[in-house]
Amino acid sequence: MKRNKSSKNGSFSRRDFLKTGALSGMMLGSGAILKGCSSENGRAQPGDAKNIIFMVSDGMSNGTLTAADHILRRHYDRTSNWISLYEQNRVSRGLMDMASGSSIVTDSAAAASSWGCGQRLVNGRVNMTEEEEPLRTILQIFRDAGKATGLATTTTITHATPAGFGANVMNRGDQETIAEQYLENRYDVLLGGGNMFYSSEHRDDGRDLYSEYEEEGYKVVRKKDDMKAYDGNGKLLGIFYDGHLPYTLDHINTEEYKRDIPTLAEMTETSIKHLSRNTNGFILQVEGGRVDHAAHGNDAAGLIYDQIAFDDAIGAALEFAENRDDTLVIITTDHGNANPGLNGVGSGYSESEPRFDRIAEFRHTNNWFLPQLDENSSISEIRELVEHATKIEIRRDEAEILRQAYADDYENLHRMMSRPWPVMGQILANYLAFNWIGTSHTADYVELAALGPGSDRIGPITKNTDMFDLMIEMAGVQEYQEG
Amino acid sequence: MKRNKSSKNGSFSRRDFLKTGALSGMMLGSGAILKGCSSENGRAQPGDAKNIIFMVSDGMSNGTLTAADHILRRHYDRTSNWISLYEQNRVSRGLMDMASGSSIVTDSAAAASSWGCGQRLVNGRVNMTEEEEPLRTILQIFRDAGKATGLATTTTITHATPAGFGANVMNRGDQETIAEQYLENRYDVLLGGGNMFYSSEHRDDGRDLYSEYEEEGYKVVRKKDDMKAYDGNGKLLGIFYDGHLPYTLDHINTEEYKRDIPTLAEMTETSIKHLSRNTNGFILQVEGGRVDHAAHGNDAAGLIYDQIAFDDAIGAALEFAENRDDTLVIITTDHGNANPGLNGVGSGYSESEPRFDRIAEFRHTNNWFLPQLDENSSISEIRELVEHATKIEIRRDEAEILRQAYADDYENLHRMMSRPWPVMGQILANYLAFNWIGTSHTADYVELAALGPGSDRIGPITKNTDMFDLMIEMAGVQEYQEG
Ligand SMILES: [Zn+2]
Ligand SMILES: [Zn+2]
Repeated sequence: MKRNKSSKNGSFSRRDFLKTGALSGMMLGSGAILKGCSSENGRAQPGDAKNIIFMVSDGMSNGTLTAADHILRRHYDRTSNWISLYEQNRVSRGLMDMASGSSIVTDSAAAASSWGCGQRLVNGRVNMTEEEEPLRTILQIFRDAGKATGLATTTTITHATPAGFGANVMNRGDQETIAEQYLENRYDVLLGGGNMFYSSEHRDDGRDLYSEYEEEGYKVVRKKDDMKAYDGNGKLLGIFYDGHLPYTLDHINTEEYKRDIPTLAEMTETSIKHLSRNTNGFILQVEGGRVDHAAHGNDAAGLIYDQIAFDDAIGAALEFAENRDDTLVIITTDHGNANPGLNGVGSGYSESEPRFDRIAEFRHTNNWFLPQLDENSSISEIRELVEHATKIEIRRDEAEILRQAYADDYENLHRMMSRPWPVMGQILANYLAFNWIGTSHTADYVELAALGPGSDRIGPITKNTDMFDLMIEMAGVQEYQEG
Repeated sequence: MKRNKSSKNGSFSRRDFLKTGALSGMMLGSGAILKGCSSENGRAQPGDAKNIIFMVSDGMSNGTLTAADHILRRHYDRTSNWISLYEQNRVSRGLMDMASGSSIVTDSAAAASSWGCGQRLVNGRVNMTEEEEPLRTILQIFRDAGKATGLATTTTITHATPAGFGANVMNRGDQETIAEQYLENRYDVLLGGGNMFYSSEHRDDGRDLYSEYEEEGYKVVRKKDDMKAYDGNGKLLGIFYDGHLPYTLDHINTEEYKRDIPTLAEMTETSIKHLSRNTNGFILQVEGGRVDHAAHGNDAAGLIYDQIAFDDAIGAALEFAENRDDTLVIITTDHGNANPGLNGVGSGYSESEPRFDRIAEFRHTNNWFLPQLDENSSISEIRELVEHATKIEIRRDEAEILRQAYADDYENLHRMMSRPWPVMGQILANYLAFNWIGTSHTADYVELAALGPGSDRIGPITKNTDMFDLMIEMAGVQEYQEG
């Protein structure tokens, strides 16, 4: 099987199914020794990580990582970059305990803040103590050390995960304030969705943040080509959609999205292009934020294609990092969500793969067609739209249950899964052999991988807040921490 | 928080809830270097692993490992041995790809055979090619190298996972033949369930395998105390139940089980005591086999307490291995199953922990009370029995759905989950915030940990069949492989 570690622009051209689904001749023998002692002159030293790229697939359960890798192997003739790094034994990896200050089930705000300020906060807080004291964030610390700072995400740029590296609010929902704080903090590159928190049309206070950013020297772009074309030395704000960016599968299959909205890999590439001009180095957070949303929504194709888009962004980061020894790349997630998985079916599990493979035939996510339906939709209308998007003919009684769910007239046995989104997820589970435990975050220990200077310090399990210390130490910015 | 890595006999005395659920002061800094370069004189060499202990929690998803660790931290004031090894950075760890020759979703026979003979077989096969050729097994190879051989499990001793190390059959269900093959192969220690495949009363052919084993010099024991008391030098067969051993939670709370049936930790300790008398060393497989059954049955307390019992067996193995440098301990699972997890509920996920904590109050597994009910049970009978076992008062309409499931009169939206066991799992999910994606194995890459000579060769991802090569090489038994 071919491995294509630099498939960063996501070749979605399909080929005949590749049926092995197996690792190709993984070699034992090199093992942890090479990685543990990768610096042949000894361990990486504090300050060796001039640059840090922190990559978060938000809400990625173990089964999400595996499912994306299986789809790539079976339908796109390549391994995910993430698993390929494992096969090539190029990373340290371990589990991470993401518990927040209020629960073993974290939310994304407390999770990102644990990395962003080194403390376990109450769910919902963004770098703020319960006494409403702001905590110095990692982007502020790096900025004050003379490094460039950036955030790139498929959600609103003001969403919890990017905010966890650079904002201070008591309530993660306060995204208008977060947009203001980014400006006050003069971060260098900000790319994502969130026009509703920038434009005077949508903001409660009527402020036009775009012109305020421009007054402070930012280049503001609203379309992919403008983002790519910009080659100046100014700071860069790119906002490409009102709210979150569309799901990857819908992005691929919608002409105007493809034309106007960059992929996460493209935003990553652009961010690195600008940030790396700073001779003191940079910190960049890259978030595949809608993996989490797809898990909340029990949306199999949404989940897998957004995980693949995140994986392509890993490719873009590696393109920059892999031939240098001064860049620490951290690849992880902030928590599991809904613990999806391919669930064996048929005699000897022989039906598992043909069912799972149907996901590769989807034209659109559940999230694309479900908003087009409601309690007044007819059964045939429901079935036709589902078939158009998924190529699956659901049963009439399944369509009827979906209709009832819109009418708030259906109670699933597991009550958390009674609304149209999880109902659709369970209906499709009958065809895809891919299902969900619920619609929210899980308490599972999560996957953590790292390469570059400092990665040798990642042990088999890491406490989330230790990532903050690791970044501070390896970048050599300690002295600026109290500034 | 106290860590008790040698809690091998499973102190189930309860204490006040320990609410942090957090890792205590995990240190970064030692990292992979120490482990990667653990042999300061260089890497472990072929032959350095005089002994191998291979530990399998059958059907353990990532969420199963996490949930058991959470229950131990919150209610038993200790960390699991497995996670404690991670915290102390004493192991190599990675993921493992367990795909079989016929599916990315493996069954336990193909999975154990991948380790047992180094080939990916069709699901259901035990070390047999499609041409019905037997493949030499790892126990045979070690035996012919002069090493002692043993199997200990909570399932029937003839079940797929132990058989995968020592038997050759086309159909894993052929457990009577497997019991005969163990005798023909003269393995040294065999401990588990499975009287139905040994006793003349139950066997189709009427043979009394117990006396056949005794004629060949085996000591046969049927009770825990006899197992513990035996101190001779003969081979040992211990069969403690008709079928699989009872689930751990039911074992703890049933007097005659506690009296007569050993725990997996006790079987592990006994196995090592006898096997380690061989001056050439030994190989032992230890299986926590009912973790898989509990996952198939969506049985939360069954799952978590059997995972804890497996973890106690890790403690027993470490007791032997940790102060020596000649024993390779491998700790893993053969596949995920049903991907359970604690699914966040309530505002800020504040209700997650109180719900999950109810599992620690269960007196019995679902598997204990569900066989006592049927379609003729009354609603009040159902509710009383559930409450007796779980301390949870389920709703009348939930009890009614369970009754319908017995009558085969209920179709769940996810049809795989329509029978009484998964129906009960989903009803309890409403109270425990702990749920399942289905009732079968998953295709997820699985958890792999190892310590001792050869563990330094474990990379971030391992192909299942490479474990066979690793064991052969590190034990230095290559020359016997073709014998
Ligand atoms: Zn979320
Ligand atoms: Zn199973």
